Amino acid sequence: MITVDGAAKLIGGTVIGDGNVRVRGLSSPEYAGDGDVTFAFDEGGLKKAGESGASCVISMCGAENYPKTILQVGDMKLAVTLLYNLMVEAEAPKTGLIHPTAVIEPTAEIGENVAIGPNVVIGKRTRIGDNTIIGANCVICDDVTIGEKTRLYPSVTIREHTKIGRKGIIHPGAVIGADGFGFVRKDGTTYKVPQMGNVVIEDDVEIGANTCVDRGAFGSTVIAKGTKIDNLVQIGHNVKIGRNVLIAGQVGISGSVTVGEDTMMGGQAGIVDHVSIGANVKIGAKTGVIGNVKDGETVFGYPYRNAAEFKKIHALQSFLLKHSKKFRELLRNDKT
Amino acid sequence: MITVDGAAKLIGGTVIGDGNVRVRGLSSPEYAGDGDVTFAFDEGGLKKAGESGASCVISMCGAENYPKTILQVGDMKLAVTLLYNLMVEAEAPKTGLIHPTAVIEPTAEIGENVAIGPNVVIGKRTRIGDNTIIGANCVICDDVTIGEKTRLYPSVTIREHTKIGRKGIIHPGAVIGADGFGFVRKDGTTYKVPQMGNVVIEDDVEIGANTCVDRGAFGSTVIAKGTKIDNLVQIGHNVKIGRNVLIAGQVGISGSVTVGEDTMMGGQAGIVDHVSIGANVKIGAKTGVIGNVKDGETVFGYPYRNAAEFKKIHALQSFLLKHSKKFRELLRNDKT
Amino acid sequence: MITVDGAAKLIGGTVIGDGNVRVRGLSSPEYAGDGDVTFAFDEGGLKKAGESGASCVISMCGAENYPKTILQVGDMKLAVTLLYNLMVEAEAPKTGLIHPTAVIEPTAEIGENVAIGPNVVIGKRTRIGDNTIIGANCVICDDVTIGEKTRLYPSVTIREHTKIGRKGIIHPGAVIGADGFGFVRKDGTTYKVPQMGNVVIEDDVEIGANTCVDRGAFGSTVIAKGTKIDNLVQIGHNVKIGRNVLIAGQVGISGSVTVGEDTMMGGQAGIVDHVSIGANVKIGAKTGVIGNVKDGETVFGYPYRNAAEFKKIHALQSFLLKHSKKFRELLRNDKT
Repeated sequence: MITVDGAAKLIGGTVIGDGNVRVRGLSSPEYAGDGDVTFAFDEGGLKKAGESGASCVISMCGAENYPKTILQVGDMKLAVTLLYNLMVEAEAPKTGLIHPTAVIEPTAEIGENVAIGPNVVIGKRTRIGDNTIIGANCVICDDVTIGEKTRLYPSVTIREHTKIGRKGIIHPGAVIGADGFGFVRKDGTTYKVPQMGNVVIEDDVEIGANTCVDRGAFGSTVIAKGTKIDNLVQIGHNVKIGRNVLIAGQVGISGSVTVGEDTMMGGQAGIVDHVSIGANVKIGAKTGVIGNVKDGETVFGYPYRNAAEFKKIHALQSFLLKHSKKFRELLRNDKT
Repeated sequence: MITVDGAAKLIGGTVIGDGNVRVRGLSSPEYAGDGDVTFAFDEGGLKKAGESGASCVISMCGAENYPKTILQVGDMKLAVTLLYNLMVEAEAPKTGLIHPTAVIEPTAEIGENVAIGPNVVIGKRTRIGDNTIIGANCVICDDVTIGEKTRLYPSVTIREHTKIGRKGIIHPGAVIGADGFGFVRKDGTTYKVPQMGNVVIEDDVEIGANTCVDRGAFGSTVIAKGTKIDNLVQIGHNVKIGRNVLIAGQVGISGSVTVGEDTMMGGQAGIVDHVSIGANVKIGAKTGVIGNVKDGETVFGYPYRNAAEFKKIHALQSFLLKHSKKFRELLRNDKT
Repeated sequence: MITVDGAAKLIGGTVIGDGNVRVRGLSSPEYAGDGDVTFAFDEGGLKKAGESGASCVISMCGAENYPKTILQVGDMKLAVTLLYNLMVEAEAPKTGLIHPTAVIEPTAEIGENVAIGPNVVIGKRTRIGDNTIIGANCVICDDVTIGEKTRLYPSVTIREHTKIGRKGIIHPGAVIGADGFGFVRKDGTTYKVPQMGNVVIEDDVEIGANTCVDRGAFGSTVIAKGTKIDNLVQIGHNVKIGRNVLIAGQVGISGSVTVGEDTMMGGQAGIVDHVSIGANVKIGAKTGVIGNVKDGETVFGYPYRNAAEFKKIHALQSFLLKHSKKFRELLRNDKT
């Protein structure tokens, strides 16, 4: 637990009321209880938050004679974000609970204070780090390693030999380490290429709901530290994603693609196999990348072009639409 | 159970044979048993249906000396649909069965005649309405509310504080209430924005298999009454979807989008964040919506245009293809 | 188990060292044990493989005084693939293990040597063929049939009346047989069309992680022998897919589409409902198919065009970009 005064020192903002109030969580006004900070965007919000069970209200507005301590800030989203991350860092380890219905192989190694939900299945020689939380109905196959303070929400499936780092978050329904899509056609038969590699997910990675990260065919699929992946994303076999990459929902990355640090991908973008995407690249939503992209470039469209060209083509189409009659006549009559 | 005569009165059609036959279900000829209505599209279908275990056959054809009651109709799909909905309405509540392997917190409140499958996990203070069915291996977290006569198929995951209305249908693998995708970048670090809101799904909503509906960051993601969502759809945090919207497979709706009533979206369409889509809008398959759309508009393409413009551009491209040689010469020679 | 000499006879390659060594599995050097073949792409790989627990190393390089038998081949991926398929074929049936936490209806029929993982749920009258493996937390509803030597990875959901053939592979999170997306709007209400059919998956089919195959409305959705489907794919109701089709990640196929043999679809392609795709068709990534496609055609873009037209339009856009100033002047000044 930290005091509101302490929080203000670390994240900025002005304390109105008792700064010695101690807080440890963040919550909506509806669900907030003792020790929680809640939020208020406006006067109405302040009224609601004042009637909530929270111990402190974070707000861009101030108020007089308010029933709770206010932490007044200039940028609400930033302040709440920093406060949340501060609290996650400060969080005392919970007493671990392993639900009696969990099926854990005797050779699995479970760390200190690990929480394991009902119907979880943990395979042979799998190691779970201290203070990690495994939600209900997760399946973790043999020889998996999961680091400390990582959280698997319910219904996650992790295939064998996967390595997951510290402080990761994996949302429900995600599938890590399924076979990549590899086939050889010979004499009219389709043969499956064995997928013998694994998935390596470094520290501080977040993986969205129902997202799939395939294992390498030979070697590893790698997602580096600090990368965040949204829901329903497909990451093919042997992809290497650099640090701090942001990948929005329903993006598809084909096999053996490499992606540099700090790159961002908009929703439903797709990347063909075996290409190299630089660092600090921005890939627009729905873009179809069919070749390499240099560091710092912004690309849009299908097939992809740099942002300036993409906008120019769109403008030219609008111009053409406006002058379409003239254009048709010109080409019909032209005598060159 | 209703009689075939009674059904004919409510949904239309002519009864051939014994109209006093009582029916309560709809089924394919292969699986039909006593009390079921089955269907036949043609003479061959009538023969097969006649040999089935069904009590009545719905068909656009008539027949003489037929072994079963026929309900002859003009529009098969409509008739079957109306009959099905009539039967769902009339259905007698089943005797509830709670499987002994289900893990239910003592503070959860389970209504009358609720069926709960094997390995279901139900969290603290969660309330399940009367006559609701929870399929095998579903995980329903703490403080969730589910209304009456709702059906969760197996392997659904519902995160905490979600509210689901009456007569909803949620298909396998759907994930409701996972964290939205929100991050703040500061000084080279990516901080997670806490996702403190919830998901509110009103009555008569259907959610497809492996579809994800994210919880609000501050406040709720809302799906209003009568809306139907197909498989593998992504609904971002704080999206508000109006009544009776139809959303086809693999659509992606980014955070804080609002969608008006009766709007329809084709498969793989995508909508950028924070835009407003009107009522009665039609969004074509694969369309990329990057701004607001007015009531009643039809849009296509990426970036989206209204339908007439989209078709015109496509026609102009075809025209240009046809005259491409001339066009290239014209621009190369032009002296203006 | 087969000898390395025996393998070389069947898949080609030169044996360096003891060809009488017996092998039965394929594995990465990190995980390889006695009886495994591992692989090495180069000198460094050979060193690593030499220190592994493997009994044989498959490689394009040779080596002298090497501690293990080498099978030297010309095409590594092909050799490994053929060897893998040889070993799967030769595999001795495992002793079946049915985990005590599995919930199996008494009327289910389980074949010989079937392995059933923890928390699996198997419904009434469901039949599982010999030597089939059902991973942890799978749910298989009533009246399902699964053939011999098929493998369901964990967390798969199979709805009632689905038929799955022999030697199939279904990856985690896949949902087979959920309701199709069918609604009728009448007088402002959206009525659900009952989905009374099923899914039929023939032999040797692979279905990717979190992929959805919907049941037919009336009749079956069919996936024919040898077809391979990647992750997060949507297959709508009453789709008929021919033999040996390859479907990459995130493809969407709407209801009642037919697809001919040996056709290939790139990632994120989409097909509107009720169209017919021929045999030996190639559909490019992200292509939007809105009509029929003839046998042997290659199509790209949205709306789709044949490959040659698509490339020409892209080239014309680039040409137009280069001459955009001239083009704008020409249309503004033209007096026709």
